[in-house]
Amino acid sequence: MGSSFGKLFRISTWGESHGGAVGVVIDGCPPGLPITAEEIQLELDRRRPGQSSITTPRKEADQVEILSGIDRGHTLGTPIALNVRNKDARPEAYKEMRETYRPSHADFTYDQKYGRRMAEGGGRSSARETIGRVAAGAIARKILKQELGIEIVAYIERIHDISMPAHETAPSREAVEASPVRCPHPDTAEKMIARIHEVRSAGDSVGGVIRCHINGVPAGLGEPVFDRLEADLGKAMLSLPATKGFSVGSGYEGTYLKGSEHNDLFENRDGRIRTASNRSGGVQGGISNGEEIYFTVAFKPTATLIQKQQTVTQKGEPTELMGRGRHDPCVLPRAVPIVESMAALVLVDHWLRQKAQNQSCSFST
Amino acid sequence: MGSSFGKLFRISTWGESHGGAVGVVIDGCPPGLPITAEEIQLELDRRRPGQSSITTPRKEADQVEILSGIDRGHTLGTPIALNVRNKDARPEAYKEMRETYRPSHADFTYDQKYGRRMAEGGGRSSARETIGRVAAGAIARKILKQELGIEIVAYIERIHDISMPAHETAPSREAVEASPVRCPHPDTAEKMIARIHEVRSAGDSVGGVIRCHINGVPAGLGEPVFDRLEADLGKAMLSLPATKGFSVGSGYEGTYLKGSEHNDLFENRDGRIRTASNRSGGVQGGISNGEEIYFTVAFKPTATLIQKQQTVTQKGEPTELMGRGRHDPCVLPRAVPIVESMAALVLVDHWLRQKAQNQSCSFST
Amino acid sequence: MGSSFGKLFRISTWGESHGGAVGVVIDGCPPGLPITAEEIQLELDRRRPGQSSITTPRKEADQVEILSGIDRGHTLGTPIALNVRNKDARPEAYKEMRETYRPSHADFTYDQKYGRRMAEGGGRSSARETIGRVAAGAIARKILKQELGIEIVAYIERIHDISMPAHETAPSREAVEASPVRCPHPDTAEKMIARIHEVRSAGDSVGGVIRCHINGVPAGLGEPVFDRLEADLGKAMLSLPATKGFSVGSGYEGTYLKGSEHNDLFENRDGRIRTASNRSGGVQGGISNGEEIYFTVAFKPTATLIQKQQTVTQKGEPTELMGRGRHDPCVLPRAVPIVESMAALVLVDHWLRQKAQNQSCSFST
Amino acid sequence: MGSSFGKLFRISTWGESHGGAVGVVIDGCPPGLPITAEEIQLELDRRRPGQSSITTPRKEADQVEILSGIDRGHTLGTPIALNVRNKDARPEAYKEMRETYRPSHADFTYDQKYGRRMAEGGGRSSARETIGRVAAGAIARKILKQELGIEIVAYIERIHDISMPAHETAPSREAVEASPVRCPHPDTAEKMIARIHEVRSAGDSVGGVIRCHINGVPAGLGEPVFDRLEADLGKAMLSLPATKGFSVGSGYEGTYLKGSEHNDLFENRDGRIRTASNRSGGVQGGISNGEEIYFTVAFKPTATLIQKQQTVTQKGEPTELMGRGRHDPCVLPRAVPIVESMAALVLVDHWLRQKAQNQSCSFST
Repeated sequence: MGSSFGKLFRISTWGESHGGAVGVVIDGCPPGLPITAEEIQLELDRRRPGQSSITTPRKEADQVEILSGIDRGHTLGTPIALNVRNKDARPEAYKEMRETYRPSHADFTYDQKYGRRMAEGGGRSSARETIGRVAAGAIARKILKQELGIEIVAYIERIHDISMPAHETAPSREAVEASPVRCPHPDTAEKMIARIHEVRSAGDSVGGVIRCHINGVPAGLGEPVFDRLEADLGKAMLSLPATKGFSVGSGYEGTYLKGSEHNDLFENRDGRIRTASNRSGGVQGGISNGEEIYFTVAFKPTATLIQKQQTVTQKGEPTELMGRGRHDPCVLPRAVPIVESMAALVLVDHWLRQKAQNQSCSFST
Repeated sequence: MGSSFGKLFRISTWGESHGGAVGVVIDGCPPGLPITAEEIQLELDRRRPGQSSITTPRKEADQVEILSGIDRGHTLGTPIALNVRNKDARPEAYKEMRETYRPSHADFTYDQKYGRRMAEGGGRSSARETIGRVAAGAIARKILKQELGIEIVAYIERIHDISMPAHETAPSREAVEASPVRCPHPDTAEKMIARIHEVRSAGDSVGGVIRCHINGVPAGLGEPVFDRLEADLGKAMLSLPATKGFSVGSGYEGTYLKGSEHNDLFENRDGRIRTASNRSGGVQGGISNGEEIYFTVAFKPTATLIQKQQTVTQKGEPTELMGRGRHDPCVLPRAVPIVESMAALVLVDHWLRQKAQNQSCSFST
Repeated sequence: MGSSFGKLFRISTWGESHGGAVGVVIDGCPPGLPITAEEIQLELDRRRPGQSSITTPRKEADQVEILSGIDRGHTLGTPIALNVRNKDARPEAYKEMRETYRPSHADFTYDQKYGRRMAEGGGRSSARETIGRVAAGAIARKILKQELGIEIVAYIERIHDISMPAHETAPSREAVEASPVRCPHPDTAEKMIARIHEVRSAGDSVGGVIRCHINGVPAGLGEPVFDRLEADLGKAMLSLPATKGFSVGSGYEGTYLKGSEHNDLFENRDGRIRTASNRSGGVQGGISNGEEIYFTVAFKPTATLIQKQQTVTQKGEPTELMGRGRHDPCVLPRAVPIVESMAALVLVDHWLRQKAQNQSCSFST
Repeated sequence: MGSSFGKLFRISTWGESHGGAVGVVIDGCPPGLPITAEEIQLELDRRRPGQSSITTPRKEADQVEILSGIDRGHTLGTPIALNVRNKDARPEAYKEMRETYRPSHADFTYDQKYGRRMAEGGGRSSARETIGRVAAGAIARKILKQELGIEIVAYIERIHDISMPAHETAPSREAVEASPVRCPHPDTAEKMIARIHEVRSAGDSVGGVIRCHINGVPAGLGEPVFDRLEADLGKAMLSLPATKGFSVGSGYEGTYLKGSEHNDLFENRDGRIRTASNRSGGVQGGISNGEEIYFTVAFKPTATLIQKQQTVTQKGEPTELMGRGRHDPCVLPRAVPIVESMAALVLVDHWLRQKAQNQSCSFST
């Protein structure tokens, strides 16, 4: 259980790191959307391993195949199944893992939960699972862009203790993509890359914070009381491997303000009701208010190290583990498209929910 | 949509602040649990308004009535409906709200979503809705306590800029309840109360951070990949009114550590596999590992102020709003039992899911 | 589990026959629908006990109370909770049932499932549970009528071996309501009433078949492949107490035809694509085709008899049971509004689903 | 929407008749079940086209590939994705269908719903979709067999007007498989085959009735009130292409009996509480009672004919359609394993639900 997400634009992912394939089926995509395998591939390439010197060297083309739901370049309204075969699987590199628990990985908890696990590369707990999310997210993004003009841009705000300067507005996607580290501030990006190379050499790793901005969301998306927009965004982000925190709008910082400092006053701007400030982060009472939605996600440092670590075997015997396998000293650059994809999935789902309940009854107006 | 939570221990809440009643129906509670209205009332009394000088003076007994599902002191396994009538409703105090949008409240977004709203006291967006959650949470907590010995203790770690000293272990519920502000550190509690009185006098408000510790959770709860334990806890907390952030384990702080500093090494302690440290916060790969689960939740300062604020009317005309109604300068003390209730609901749901899939097939072992 | 129905117009019912109350909460009702307690009461009165000499003499006003979700005569878009208190509960009449299993009732299976049950009047297995369905159904019917002009008319086609003559078109609701037995053919209705009186005198019971016609359903409702319209209608009907069969369109009879006799040929009628015949029953490939939807439901004879029957006690000891309690010799007349309500719930749910996915994307056309 | 089934053992299918592949992902399968591709293939071969002279000549090996969730011969507890590629796709055979509506097919309704469709072979509305169900069903059946000793046997009771003689007990699977028509009564099977050959020669088709018997189901499965076992079985069967009716236990026949004739009296047989008769069909109050579950499903005659039929084009112009494509004069023999698979999916889902709520709380006993 737990491998499905969304209520109306519902995705179900499958796949282990070193099994046959990873993929996703999307149920609920509206018919008639023009979409090609190339558009999906574009997003997958952004999260692909081996795309730059600062990520894992695992070699995977991550080539997507459309199994169903798309015909002559358009969605049919039926389930869209997307599949990506695993290629560069070297099970022999993982022999040790079968019997020894890697610290801060999911080996132990999978064994506790299921009584078994596919040890190679973390099996289902591997971040390869997010391929399905990104493939589905590519379709969700296209819908949002085309129907509502929504733009989602995530980027790295901080790696370890290297932060980009404070800034007010969302950077462009081009600015983000200009650096392999996906930080839109060139000087900071350089320092981040240096830090990643540094920890890689030491067989160590670093984490940081990704920030995401969403513009163009119409007011009215989000369902009180449990399926608030920020609650679903939070769940989406906290379902990503290595995440430890989520905050929306003013977040933890905002709790240092008084109400009189924090409230977003309403004003009439250009004939539209707007807020003068946006500490709410574009969501009030769980529902979008038409302002920019922004949030941050905290990623812990990668658990895999090329260092000797104390641990135990499956039987509880103390032992040492020397990380081999392939090593990704910082997951954040590749996590950027994943964060964007999850945000897109949440938004398109809430947009469909809003359409169902609120926007086309004759009696509603 | 959006008023249900949980997959197997599923609650559905109803009610507006000034409508007939607020309540909840629970579908999926196991049969045979001994539970009384008094036990449920006990938790409701902890979130009741007017319980101390630092909360809203609204007078509500919040008396729960069991409508179904419990017979001769035990759950039947059928839906449990719990209802609480609204008493101290003074609609006349809210006339202004019908036409004027309160800053940082949900008035505007409800209008945008539904085309209408019940203006009195915020209607459905009022925190009175959480009564149903706390009533259901009381039952969830009893199950967890009785079946697994799980203890959930939340408390206030910070109000505005007043923090309690760093501490390692979970405080007792008695220590938390000793002060009306629900901070277990007496000196800090006094300062917090003083600050709350201070902002109340100024018609202002403050927010802060609640921390929650959960002990006794067995390893194995949590469903990869979307329904990770921390993802569901995060969603639960971010579905509460006024929350802006959630972090689990090392949270945002942990991102300043390197992997070699952050990893929780496994060791054999008293014949059991344990982690030497607990920066993971009791969850690895989305699944509980048997260590203490802990997380924090950020609450923004209350939006209602007894001050003049700039805003607009429904028609977009600039106006001033002078908060009247009843004023709660700091929601955190009353939010403590709500945080605990939501955590309990998440845990009992995941425990049932784990029972279904993993713990009683002959072939699983 | 199992007390909720529908995906977007989702109802959750509660209540035992002799507990405090029975009721329902509806999540997903569009905002702005004008609806009053009186309109809901009207449908409840059609299923109320004691409405005529041919039903159970249990005296219940079945007065509905709106707890939430409706304000100043219109739905808010928030959950609508509707509650009906149990009044004429005579637990003493059911003492025997606590220890003895009534044949063809749910006493034994509830004990097997839950390890306990509320014995009085069948507890949760009582048809009183359908009150919540009818209350919610009244709202669903209003939506269908107002938005789409859909008319749902059910009636009794056969009681025991007394059938009304073959007929082609749906009778009017007035014709159905003209007789307490809810058969629109007056002569047959009289015979049915006589038969019911006859079996009542003998302490016996009869079943029969209800037929339902739905006109005005637009083409396009129903979701391939599992949530076909007829599959959801079938589930809805088979979830009613005492039902043993469901058939749509040509049903079992149609299996005696060859394909060349059974196929509904398309034709252009008045500028619209129509079928010349309607053996499909208004549904093709699980999706409505704009023709009349019709189906039948088989109800077994009431299990409660005022006769001596062989049975066993909870401990498995042979004993005799002499039915006392209140006796309903034929449930079909009161089941008519319940069948209509369930059909309305299915249709409004599918209409919302269709709106979400298919009817308002710019790219769909 | 609508391509998923089940709550805890949840399947999601994908695929069009002439797209890349058809398949299924199962979320919620318990870990540790020994299962091989061969076992799944065995069931697929039973529903494969071209297996005998009385079914469609389409040539498909329907070779299943396991994409995920199974490792070293055992389920992992993670999603199991199973994929079958379409091979013998002859789109040119279907050119006419793109513009002309086949009578009693889903061409028209898909166009009405989605505004487009994949015309070749019916696209998503093709019975090829059931491949995913049968593949998932093979795993469900293995669980039921291994854990509970449950046996599910379906067979053809009637083709057109040729019925097998009345019989009391479930036939063996061997008896059913002895004839390609899957009727366990050899003389009747011969007549059925002759009838099928006869209608095939005439380019016509026939339907009929499949009966299914399930033995070994423990008492207690099924969830009041909406998810009754018979309601979920009914939905499962009515979600199959070409089905028009479902009845359980005494079904429509039973409505001709009085309550005193219909009730199943309880008795103590061999120290267990049993019913003397079984008109209930193994389900009382929506919950299994430990007796044999049996039901029937009505299948209409195949809509595809090799005859000239009146119809209209997409634009509503009258035309004639001469069926070409491949023709299956009677779908029932191949539907037998599909009926069994759907029954298995319902049962394993309810078994998991029962485990979650009712069978392992210390307080339940």
